Amino acid sequence: MYAAPSIQKLLDELERLPGIGPKSAQRIAYWILNTDRATALRLSEAIAEVKDQVHFCKRCFNYAEEDLCDICRSAKRDAGIICVVSEPRDIPPIERTAVFSGVYHVLGGALSPLEGIGPDDLRIAELMKRLASGEVQEVVLATNPNVEGETTAAYLARLIKPLGVSVTRPASGLPVGGDLEFADEVTLGRAIEARRPL
Amino acid sequence: MYAAPSIQKLLDELERLPGIGPKSAQRIAYWILNTDRATALRLSEAIAEVKDQVHFCKRCFNYAEEDLCDICRSAKRDAGIICVVSEPRDIPPIERTAVFSGVYHVLGGALSPLEGIGPDDLRIAELMKRLASGEVQEVVLATNPNVEGETTAAYLARLIKPLGVSVTRPASGLPVGGDLEFADEVTLGRAIEARRPL
Repeated sequence: MYAAPSIQKLLDELERLPGIGPKSAQRIAYWILNTDRATALRLSEAIAEVKDQVHFCKRCFNYAEEDLCDICRSAKRDAGIICVVSEPRDIPPIERTAVFSGVYHVLGGALSPLEGIGPDDLRIAELMKRLASGEVQEVVLATNPNVEGETTAAYLARLIKPLGVSVTRPASGLPVGGDLEFADEVTLGRAIEARRPL
Repeated sequence: MYAAPSIQKLLDELERLPGIGPKSAQRIAYWILNTDRATALRLSEAIAEVKDQVHFCKRCFNYAEEDLCDICRSAKRDAGIICVVSEPRDIPPIERTAVFSGVYHVLGGALSPLEGIGPDDLRIAELMKRLASGEVQEVVLATNPNVEGETTAAYLARLIKPLGVSVTRPASGLPVGGDLEFADEVTLGRAIEARRPL
């Protein structure tokens, strides 16, 4: 295929991005070629900057620009409730709900015997250390509702309950706005089991 | 929404890209955060490099890193046939067909009275200057088969024919591998009009 070497290089790098195939890469590359220099360089610099400035929060392992992330540093957050998630990307959707005012703990993955990911590969020791202070009353296990996430939640529940800390998990049920007709059996089954009085 | 400032900045810049909405931007941003530093910086530098090194070919206005693009510099290309396209992005698909061995001329758009784009806004004077040398035997008008592209082709044909240069346009017809059933009327009509003996 014909393209100037620097354009081909840009195409190669763009195609590495998730969800970007050859067609999208080409569309983005031509947009970058057509746009003004300042806009293109802002993107280039934003990528470099994020790699320079962002690291893991020393307490919860969320992404942070300081030693601690904004949530861990906030005086408004309740340090007595820790929400455990697999990845930093799971935090923004929970924050957007605006119903959780506790703090987080990012495991850095989920247990997966198939992929050889065991407890020592996750930040479980770090979580237990946070719980040892005795200040935490509740741990919300918000790992994904899939096999690995459920396994991880079950494992952590067994580990944490003996400490006398309350362990919870977000409810499984029908998605709001969804159709009963299209719900899968497992979700619908759990929703009926967990039915609540009106 | 919660995100560290440098992450938010990256999200904002990614969302400007064509075909990238908030969800894709987030997916790409987290990929950049998770990937190794070298890979992320290669992307960052490829964007900056393309803005530094790529400009327009002085002859055909394709993207080029030197004064002339690879095609204009190539001794293998037939300078006697010029294929006229609207944008540099139209060149790679034609090159991929491997059936065209001439050179190109990029207009930089198409005539559009509605958007106020007239002949002086396109590189038509530059094309006429190239034709003035008398070395060109054929001009292939490969502007897009839409209203603006057809208008531009008709305008250029009227301008070029008096010079005694042969003017052609890629055939309209049924896409190969397509279904007759789903062809639009205009395309099917043109395909039947332009039917060929077997």
